[in-house]
This record gives sequence, C-alpha cells and structure tokens, in this order.
Amino acid sequence: MKKISESAVRRLSLYLRLLQEADAAGAETISSGQLAERGGTTSAQVRKDLSLFGSFGKRGLGYSVQELLGRIREILGLQKTWRVALVGAGKLGSALFSYRDFEARGFHIRAVFDSDPRKVGTTWGGLTVCADEEMERTLADEQVDMAILAVPADAAQQVADRIVAAGVRGILNFAPVRLKVPRGVALKNVDVTLELEGLSFALNPR
Amino acid sequence: MKKISESAVRRLSLYLRLLQEADAAGAETISSGQLAERGGTTSAQVRKDLSLFGSFGKRGLGYSVQELLGRIREILGLQKTWRVALVGAGKLGSALFSYRDFEARGFHIRAVFDSDPRKVGTTWGGLTVCADEEMERTLADEQVDMAILAVPADAAQQVADRIVAAGVRGILNFAPVRLKVPRGVALKNVDVTLELEGLSFALNPR
Repeated sequence: MKKISESAVRRLSLYLRLLQEADAAGAETISSGQLAERGGTTSAQVRKDLSLFGSFGKRGLGYSVQELLGRIREILGLQKTWRVALVGAGKLGSALFSYRDFEARGFHIRAVFDSDPRKVGTTWGGLTVCADEEMERTLADEQVDMAILAVPADAAQQVADRIVAAGVRGILNFAPVRLKVPRGVALKNVDVTLELEGLSFALNPR
Repeated sequence: MKKISESAVRRLSLYLRLLQEADAAGAETISSGQLAERGGTTSAQVRKDLSLFGSFGKRGLGYSVQELLGRIREILGLQKTWRVALVGAGKLGSALFSYRDFEARGFHIRAVFDSDPRKVGTTWGGLTVCADEEMERTLADEQVDMAILAVPADAAQQVADRIVAAGVRGILNFAPVRLKVPRGVALKNVDVTLELEGLSFALNPR
C-alpha cells in the first residue's frame, strides 16, 4: 500500500463518521460527493483517497456503506480496542476524561496519573488516580498502547521520555511545547493557538 | 494570490514558530531544510508554500528570518490583536482560559460566558463571567472577532447560531459535534477522537 498522508488519514476519519451516520440511518450506498462534503474535499480527492486501499465504488451506484465502513475501520486500526493512559488530572485532564466519546470509539482510558498528592487516590469513574511514581509499572500492567498528555509545558518532555521508555508507542500531546520522540513513536499535538491562527488567516482581509 | 490550503496554513504557523525561535536566538537566515523539518514536510514543499506569496529565498543563503517572519505574520493576520470570547466556563473552558500562550500570540480573551448561575459573576483573571443572556450584547460591546466554544455537544449548534447572528466571524469548536455555519464564517474544530484515530492508524500494523 502507498504511503498515506496525515491529511488523508484525517479525511478517512471524517468519511467514517458520515458512514456511521448513514449506516445508522439505514443507507446502503453513499456517493463520493457526500463523502467529499463531509471530508471538506472534492469527489476526485475522495476517489483518490479510497483508491489507496483498493477500489470499491461502482460508477453511478456509489460505495457500499457496509463495505467501506469495514475497510476504513480496518485501515485506521479501529477493529481493536486501544488502551489509553491519561497523564495529568488537572482541569484539562478532567475535561478530557469526562468526554465519553472516546469509549464509544474504542479508546479505553485504563489509567490516570498525576503528581499532585491531593489528586492521587481519588476515584474517577471507577479508576483511581495513580501517583506519578507508579507510572512505569502501571503502564506495563495495564498494557497501555497510547497516552494523552495533559501536563504543564515544562513537564511534558520528561513525561514523554518516561512513557516512551515504558513502551508506549503513541502520544497525544496537549502541552504547548514541541516534544521530541524517537522514531517509531507516533505523536499528535493538539495546538489550540495554531487553530486560532487558522481562524486569523481566514478572517484576515486579503 | 493563489488559494492557500488548510494544511499550508498550518505549516505557515509551524514555520512562524521556528522563525520566532531563530529570531530570539539571533539567527539572521534560515534554510528551507530547517523550515521543512519543523513543518513536517520537504524543502520542496517549503519553497512551494513560500512561493505562494512571493519568493524570498536566495539560493545557498536561505531566507531572511526578519523578512519571512514579517511576511508570515501578515499572511496569517497576526499583525493585529484579535478579540476572543470564551463560551463555556466548565473544566475545559477553565483549562483554556488559563492557557496564557493565547495572549502572547495576539488572541485576547475579552469575555467569558456560562449558563450556570453558580459561575456567572465569578471573576477570571480580571474578567467577570457573563450570563448566557448577556451574550449578544457583550459580543457587540467588546467587538469580539472570534469565539471559542467549550460547551456541551447538545448546546453547541444553538450557541454557534447565536454568536454568528451577533456578528462573530470565526469559531473554534471543541464540542464533539459537526456545526453548521453560514458561508463567510470560519470554523475550526478540535476533535480529540480524530487525533486518537490518527494515532491508531500510525500504530496499526500493516
């Protein structure tokens, strides 16, 4: 299979949501035009994206919702449940924890860590917040695949180094800092200022 | 000027950060290779991105940090200060509010709204949290350009409709819901599950 760009992966996620809605509504087929609208792209791009992993569409009939749903879930690795750790039980961590959509989409939070002794030992939806020192052992015990970092900027790199050393292979970073991770570790950043700059660009008269 | 894609705008933001660091460190020029590394792209793509708004680089000498810094800030609309409202003073809103990077990057939070009477009237860093009912008037009084939506999914569309009607032209949405906004309104979504799906894709053996 050819290399798939980050933006193509994002579009696959968006197509997937539309397919799930279409499936829930009982639709059997979907057109590249409908997928394009949801993915914020063109029909030609949809066909190109989907051709990356084999062609499904029948000209004039569109794509089979079931078939495409299964295939995209497979490509995105969503046929399995991912074991996730949340590092940082502050305001952001707490907001993320209460975001129930994760669970429904196959991302199960198995551990929460914090360095604040007032938070350690408290119970969050059946999980006990673990002390920072227990991180390595708990990540291994819980066989955590990926971690969400909701820690202050000055702590983020050190935490990233520790969880990578403990075998975690995916990091979603909310700290406003550029993390260094070794090859083979997937890193995504949620960078709110960057999004605001995107709005600034859009609103800026040219 | 040619149309600039969303991913090119994101790269411009990343180049800008590297340029600011380079400037702070006293560097006068920067190479397309350095910009490429930060933008997660190739030198050829950097040259293509920068050629969208006129060429600056001198072969073998790289780009002038000062010149490129100024030009990217201008393109991104960062030569002005943007007036921002935060709608939703819950855990997420509170985490976002305390994120001081906004201010430093020219995004000034001028108003905070919540529908919870226990939050209304409390003071956040010198701002008083306003009641939901005061939204239209306050958005106008404060001449708000863009709003950050940190409200529950089931409230998001209604809030978006109201702020758009009140003249706000940019929305950064954190609610896990697909908002409809009229043409001419810029919308960005921070979608945490989509980021996790990106990690899932990267970790999925193929």
